[in-house]
Amino acid sequence: MSTTPSRVHMAMGFDPDEDVDLDPATRALIERRDRVLGPSYRLFYREPVAIESGKGVWLKGMDGRDYLDAYNNVPVVGHSHPAITAAATAQLATLNTHTRYLTEPVIAYSERLLATFPDALNRVTYTCTGSEAVDLAVRTARHATGNRGLIISEHAYHGTTVAAAGISPSLGPNNPLGDDVVTIASVDTARIPPEQVAAKLEADVRSAIEQLQESGAGVTAIILDSILSSDGVQVEPAGFLAPLVDLVHEAGGLYIADEVQPGFGRTGEWWGFERHALTPDLAVLGKPMGNGIPIAALVGTEESQRKFGEDIRYFNTFGGNPVSIAAANAVLDVIEQEQLRQNAAEVGRMLLTGLERIGADDDRVLHVRGAGLFLAMEFADADGAPDEALAARVVNGMRDEGVLISASGPAAAALKIRPPLVFDSGNAEQLLETLERVLRSTR
Amino acid sequence: MSTTPSRVHMAMGFDPDEDVDLDPATRALIERRDRVLGPSYRLFYREPVAIESGKGVWLKGMDGRDYLDAYNNVPVVGHSHPAITAAATAQLATLNTHTRYLTEPVIAYSERLLATFPDALNRVTYTCTGSEAVDLAVRTARHATGNRGLIISEHAYHGTTVAAAGISPSLGPNNPLGDDVVTIASVDTARIPPEQVAAKLEADVRSAIEQLQESGAGVTAIILDSILSSDGVQVEPAGFLAPLVDLVHEAGGLYIADEVQPGFGRTGEWWGFERHALTPDLAVLGKPMGNGIPIAALVGTEESQRKFGEDIRYFNTFGGNPVSIAAANAVLDVIEQEQLRQNAAEVGRMLLTGLERIGADDDRVLHVRGAGLFLAMEFADADGAPDEALAARVVNGMRDEGVLISASGPAAAALKIRPPLVFDSGNAEQLLETLERVLRSTR
Repeated sequence: MSTTPSRVHMAMGFDPDEDVDLDPATRALIERRDRVLGPSYRLFYREPVAIESGKGVWLKGMDGRDYLDAYNNVPVVGHSHPAITAAATAQLATLNTHTRYLTEPVIAYSERLLATFPDALNRVTYTCTGSEAVDLAVRTARHATGNRGLIISEHAYHGTTVAAAGISPSLGPNNPLGDDVVTIASVDTARIPPEQVAAKLEADVRSAIEQLQESGAGVTAIILDSILSSDGVQVEPAGFLAPLVDLVHEAGGLYIADEVQPGFGRTGEWWGFERHALTPDLAVLGKPMGNGIPIAALVGTEESQRKFGEDIRYFNTFGGNPVSIAAANAVLDVIEQEQLRQNAAEVGRMLLTGLERIGADDDRVLHVRGAGLFLAMEFADADGAPDEALAARVVNGMRDEGVLISASGPAAAALKIRPPLVFDSGNAEQLLETLERVLRSTR
Repeated sequence: MSTTPSRVHMAMGFDPDEDVDLDPATRALIERRDRVLGPSYRLFYREPVAIESGKGVWLKGMDGRDYLDAYNNVPVVGHSHPAITAAATAQLATLNTHTRYLTEPVIAYSERLLATFPDALNRVTYTCTGSEAVDLAVRTARHATGNRGLIISEHAYHGTTVAAAGISPSLGPNNPLGDDVVTIASVDTARIPPEQVAAKLEADVRSAIEQLQESGAGVTAIILDSILSSDGVQVEPAGFLAPLVDLVHEAGGLYIADEVQPGFGRTGEWWGFERHALTPDLAVLGKPMGNGIPIAALVGTEESQRKFGEDIRYFNTFGGNPVSIAAANAVLDVIEQEQLRQNAAEVGRMLLTGLERIGADDDRVLHVRGAGLFLAMEFADADGAPDEALAARVVNGMRDEGVLISASGPAAAALKIRPPLVFDSGNAEQLLETLERVLRSTR
């Protein structure tokens, strides 16, 4: 575990230089891991969790403990859901090939997926990861507009390819942003009055557009995570993104909605942009799409994709393969059959109310917010400054008490609560009770 | 099926503007597909193949016909192999999560995978696609060297992200190459005497290095598909890549081996770079790794990855997930148990001999070459110029006779024969007999 002090790590994560009392089995596994995995891997939690199995909202540790999963958005219908296993298994035993042959399931799924979008979004291209879909959105938008410039949020995260990392300032100061990328300030809804949020962002976007036009890069697109997750989960007042998109459209640019985090029902609606009454030109889907079997997509208007499609053939070997499509189709089945959008809205409201109640009694809590099953509780110190240390203590305290969450935001001072959509009211009560207990213990 | 005449398509592929007599079911499926899939999708074959199921080297068409698959390298152990289905199913029913928790299988698989590499390549980072792994190799190498410049082959294909497409001139004239990318001429082993191949390439690499040093970009890396697939499958004389790598190392750059095409036993050895007695700094793995379940990887020396790993945390949500790892582990099991490297070498030799015999009797065949189960037969017209039209006719003729292959090379004048590694001598005989018949019919 040789590392230098300069090694970038997550505030709530494992730090190999810190003296932590790990059990011998965990320590041995970490040492074995460090000998073979690339040095840019990181582990969650001061004391990492070794996992053996999962079921629904539960992860079973190698320590024999059950952990309540209030963090993972990929297993959207729950860990090891039998419908996903059955669908993938049946397809694996039948056919797994690519989109340069004709296969029916990819067409049927596309029809079904597009039906959840506004009519204007009528074409879908499959990738394997959200990063690839973001990257393809950038390629497509640049080709469509002939421009280079991109407008992003100050603490955005959009992925890991060169182009996606180039619009992901949340990766830290060592990660270079791309050329022709202009940031607008993270909207700090904990500190800005709701009626000023849209105006603040509008001023920033106007200035970004001017900067891109003056530099000669021109405006390709504004790309925004519809729930601004890495900017701290910023949701109120609903609709505040709409005026920004108007400005970008007036400047000849496109609007790319990054739906990797809010999409597939998490906010209680199918897509996060619905909260802002927007229709994107391009929308990027990812994480929950196949409940963990890699699949992601770029959905968009035919118009925005036409020029790219005529000039360049795009082929993603595994993108839209029949097995990933079968899993994705089963995910839509379960979301509908188990009414998970409704569940996200209802249990989300219950969590929000509970978090607000806890926050009202604790002066370290600056702000509580959320939409559906994506919630944040932000901490500040006595001077009102972001309290990252407290957030990291709470995240790790919750882990020790058997509840898995994380931290978010520019200063990582907000708890990030983002469970599988099968999280029920009993799970919510357990989370709230545990949080109260952990908050008391950190006084 | 509205398209413009300018629409880029594959020479051997479906052209919606061409008047082809399609059966009504196929036509209906294509029309339905065109209404929902992104406009950059293309279909193989003048008359596209609609596929229903696959088993071993066979694909069953929706027309009821059995097609011999002599093209697909992803189902490396054969279509629908029960061992892959069983491994993925068991893991799907147990746990599918990510690398920020500790899980044992990803560590055990990494140990096993790295054991197939030279000792110096001792760290692995997982992605979902070869494109992502190429992209990460570029990010890593740029961060390690502090340089920007990349040396690639003139007709290279390395993937579909902005950065990977930027080093993929085979995507055509509408696809912009990246800044600071310099190409060396495709090595045309059909026309250059074997003893001049290395010297020709060396001169080009020297010039590329000078160009990058003079421009101030500096030399980041040379990236080469170890079997130069899209440059036409260039394999002889074995070892010709080694002097190029020495030159790049002397200039302070790294050597990135793209093993997406030749890797996992296709050439009869584990890795294509073995043919050239080379040890890469970074190696990119992809397509066959999980027999179609998305998984890819960047393998490299600890040294080449250290700086990137210290400065930047890399997290690929689906990369190295337990289900993909289970599939990848089962692929290694089958390659070993069914002795598929040996099979690739033996059946590959049989095919090469057969193609040479056919070529000796047909003056349209300029050159036959191959390593293991990756082979090419290149056509030229009476003036010695590449005969793309004949290659397309043969590929489509083979399809009509129930054998699936494709075309490759800068002018797409070479047949690309690249079957699953379970291709046996009977399959090889069928391919050769069909090829002879189709060649006769095109006279």
